[in-house]
Amino acid sequence: MSVTFPRGFRAGSVTAGSKPSGLPDLGLLVDPGTTAAGVFTTNLVSAAPIRLSRARLASGSPRAVLVNSGQANAATGARGDALTATASAAVALGLASAEVLPCSTGVIGEPLHLPELDAALPALVDALSTEGGEDFARAIMTTDSVDKRATGEVDGIRVGGCAKGVGMIAPNLATMLVFVTTDAAVSAPDLPADDPGAAGPAVQRAVGGRLDEHERHRAAARERRRGGSADGTGSFVWARLAEAVASVGESLLRQPAADAEGASHVLIVEVEGADAEADARAMAKAVADSPLVKTAAFGGDPNPGRILQAAGAAGVGFDVGSLDVFIGDVQVAEGGVVPPSYFEDDALIEKARAQMGAPEIAIRATVGDGPGRSRAMGCDLSYEYIRINGEYTT
Amino acid sequence: MSVTFPRGFRAGSVTAGSKPSGLPDLGLLVDPGTTAAGVFTTNLVSAAPIRLSRARLASGSPRAVLVNSGQANAATGARGDALTATASAAVALGLASAEVLPCSTGVIGEPLHLPELDAALPALVDALSTEGGEDFARAIMTTDSVDKRATGEVDGIRVGGCAKGVGMIAPNLATMLVFVTTDAAVSAPDLPADDPGAAGPAVQRAVGGRLDEHERHRAAARERRRGGSADGTGSFVWARLAEAVASVGESLLRQPAADAEGASHVLIVEVEGADAEADARAMAKAVADSPLVKTAAFGGDPNPGRILQAAGAAGVGFDVGSLDVFIGDVQVAEGGVVPPSYFEDDALIEKARAQMGAPEIAIRATVGDGPGRSRAMGCDLSYEYIRINGEYTT
Repeated sequence: MSVTFPRGFRAGSVTAGSKPSGLPDLGLLVDPGTTAAGVFTTNLVSAAPIRLSRARLASGSPRAVLVNSGQANAATGARGDALTATASAAVALGLASAEVLPCSTGVIGEPLHLPELDAALPALVDALSTEGGEDFARAIMTTDSVDKRATGEVDGIRVGGCAKGVGMIAPNLATMLVFVTTDAAVSAPDLPADDPGAAGPAVQRAVGGRLDEHERHRAAARERRRGGSADGTGSFVWARLAEAVASVGESLLRQPAADAEGASHVLIVEVEGADAEADARAMAKAVADSPLVKTAAFGGDPNPGRILQAAGAAGVGFDVGSLDVFIGDVQVAEGGVVPPSYFEDDALIEKARAQMGAPEIAIRATVGDGPGRSRAMGCDLSYEYIRINGEYTT
Repeated sequence: MSVTFPRGFRAGSVTAGSKPSGLPDLGLLVDPGTTAAGVFTTNLVSAAPIRLSRARLASGSPRAVLVNSGQANAATGARGDALTATASAAVALGLASAEVLPCSTGVIGEPLHLPELDAALPALVDALSTEGGEDFARAIMTTDSVDKRATGEVDGIRVGGCAKGVGMIAPNLATMLVFVTTDAAVSAPDLPADDPGAAGPAVQRAVGGRLDEHERHRAAARERRRGGSADGTGSFVWARLAEAVASVGESLLRQPAADAEGASHVLIVEVEGADAEADARAMAKAVADSPLVKTAAFGGDPNPGRILQAAGAAGVGFDVGSLDVFIGDVQVAEGGVVPPSYFEDDALIEKARAQMGAPEIAIRATVGDGPGRSRAMGCDLSYEYIRINGEYTT
């Protein structure tokens, strides 16, 4: 069901002819009564639809999202294609232009195929349906091998979502689209602004991939201030909503990692005990993004040195003597040192090899007793990644 | 000739049995009258020999370098193996222990094969020769397919060097060893300390891969203060030495990039016009290290979007409207925009494709009119990289 699982949303898709494959390439998601919030890439070379969506979210309350796949409409200059496309969609939907957010994904630098998009809009609006979530999820795919969808329900509040994106080599949202819907009555100010420091825990934490205990406490406190209660008996179940959104977000993070170009393993790197969450995050990302850790994951090689090397190069200060590393439940470094027996203990190596060969490889590092902890996901780096990204323009 | 090209140095190698291949794995370089300086990785998880070499350079004047290949002696704890190995070598050479610098390269976490190293030392000292530079360069190799050597001579001053290292995916020296020798009479304080901000332009600039005009002026000024002259007629030809060292350094940077695991293309990314050199450096590295740029280089795909994406994600502030990008002499972005004709002009695309298929791919970006410029080298990311790093413990 994806984004149409929550009540009030309709979605649909058509083939406008922008993809060489001839698969559906234009999607529309709409709820005339909704509010919206968004988080965007920090990449300076952001596409026109990102700049326009950011502005429309800041100044109004968008009701619809128009997504094309095939062209990213990035580095295309001041053509105004995103303005034109959303203006046409707004007319067809009976909305104001500023109520339609544009999203584009595909080849950078190639202009939108605007006449084809325009011609396809009437059929797209006709296709809108409360059952259209799957069609929408498929229309936003590019190199994805499967569509990514998730739903959650807590105390009658529904949350739905879909995503496109693969590869996960440090994308920082730049190659992903994620849409999350809910029928909880949340006002826009409660949703996060496009600012990592802003209020609105639910979406921010979902983007971070984690709703931790600390967050649950804050959400509960927030709900008490609203006159509700932390145990879900209030009129507005903020903590439960945050949990449902986080669960959908977690699923939508995991699916692109698992569908990464040619990947056969997902890397889940957790770092605990850092001085600050940002430090833990930087270390976890450094390990998950390391080409040498990724190739070790591809080869099923439980190589402690590559993990230590990546952690040490993260640009974060920590006491190496406090660095413990585990692959699954096998400790491969203690106090920054690989146990002397590690390379000689065949049974231990075999156990570690099994963990490194698992579909989900859990790497865990503790770096002290600080409060900072974080997690990063990645995938292995395979022959298929080279084939997909070396042989085609993407 | 490598490191023994300058007068006074002797070098040699033996097979101590630490490499599965049975190739030479222990090298020694010595000049009892020399002074020394060094620059080391900033990785926090640094190996024992790095910590010991750093300390010995800070407090004394080392005369010899003992290098083993096969084990990195990293993350091996407080075993004291580097102390023991250099103490044995010092006895054999008639030097103090503190005059011998240890270097190790190979598998992380595996202890040194100390008894084998010890047993091999007498033969190693016997092998020392003024013709031993090539043997030394080969003994320090790990996954290198060729040894890397360079020499330079300016006004009778000789500079020699050798290096080991491949891959070049953001190594930041952590997987490289580079040795540069000279018979110029340079006192240790003129050589750089292990501090990027410290004096001593020659080696620092060689590590940076570039001796720019600004540096030449500074070196000439320095020489004038010494009573020499900028045109090389003084008793101490500092500017000329700096130039020779930079030329050897440049060659020793280029060879590991060209010999990267499975690489068939070297990427040379130049960024100009940034606010500061550090900004230019970060952008150049972000492009050269981008897996998507690397796979595009492997496939010979002149993909402007991947270069723009990597530059925009470098974490450096710049005006996207001032961003021009060239692949060779083909402009693929102007003011942050891919020329609208780019994807339609077959002749232009073919020209760009030829540049992207060259053995050395030159990517150049200007980001404004600031003074910051820098350069980074990298290589393409190929099937062979996956094979080498995925199928073996390295």
